[in-house]
Amino acid sequence: MHKRGNKSAGTHRFAYQGLDRVIHEKARLSLLTSLMTHPEGLRFADLKQLCALTDGNLNRHLQVLERAKLVKIAKFQEHKRLHTVCQVTALGRKRYVEYLAVLEQVVLDAAAAGKAGAAIDDESGPALVGA
Amino acid sequence: MHKRGNKSAGTHRFAYQGLDRVIHEKARLSLLTSLMTHPEGLRFADLKQLCALTDGNLNRHLQVLERAKLVKIAKFQEHKRLHTVCQVTALGRKRYVEYLAVLEQVVLDAAAAGKAGAAIDDESGPALVGA
Repeated sequence: MHKRGNKSAGTHRFAYQGLDRVIHEKARLSLLTSLMTHPEGLRFADLKQLCALTDGNLNRHLQVLERAKLVKIAKFQEHKRLHTVCQVTALGRKRYVEYLAVLEQVVLDAAAAGKAGAAIDDESGPALVGA
Repeated sequence: MHKRGNKSAGTHRFAYQGLDRVIHEKARLSLLTSLMTHPEGLRFADLKQLCALTDGNLNRHLQVLERAKLVKIAKFQEHKRLHTVCQVTALGRKRYVEYLAVLEQVVLDAAAAGKAGAAIDDESGPALVGA
């Protein structure tokens, strides 16, 4: 029923080493995708809204991204008032695009897996004893 | 340079609520994808190899998946020896397919974002003061 993985071809086949944890974390993936679609920058209030984050989580995750130099946080003036705006950096864009390539591979693997599994009843396995 | 998010259409646009944290975590995404592509089940040693995990991490993450009823761990006999094998459950397959739909949306958003950003120099912004 089961079989050993192909050691030569399959080593680390699904390790997805390129899934950078700084980007992969759900809230930060959400933030970076928002910022990638708004390269001109987004205000904190808009980021909070788009990503459904609390102030605390927004600040915490933006700090992680800023320390990794993937985003920059800056002030701008409008109608004599100072606002804070966040922008993805050139490094952030580069790393995001690299991450995306790995994510696309996961989706391809997963889609293939979904198809492969569809025809098999996984509720029972004659070779299995005990569950 | 920047603009406010469209509150009516854009609320929580990039929140990706469906990115189930149980599955999204990198090691567990790796494990589940391996198991989805091997619906007949995989031995611990093969999972470790495919996902490039240590024994400790393998056990820790399999426990999380088992508690969530996404995988089952069972024994089987071969040549009079007892082996341990891991399999994705029907619920695990369902949740993985749901997760995949959200992941595909992230990839679509991200790919669109990559294109949108490609033409813009993000290293400077005339409206920004201070970095």
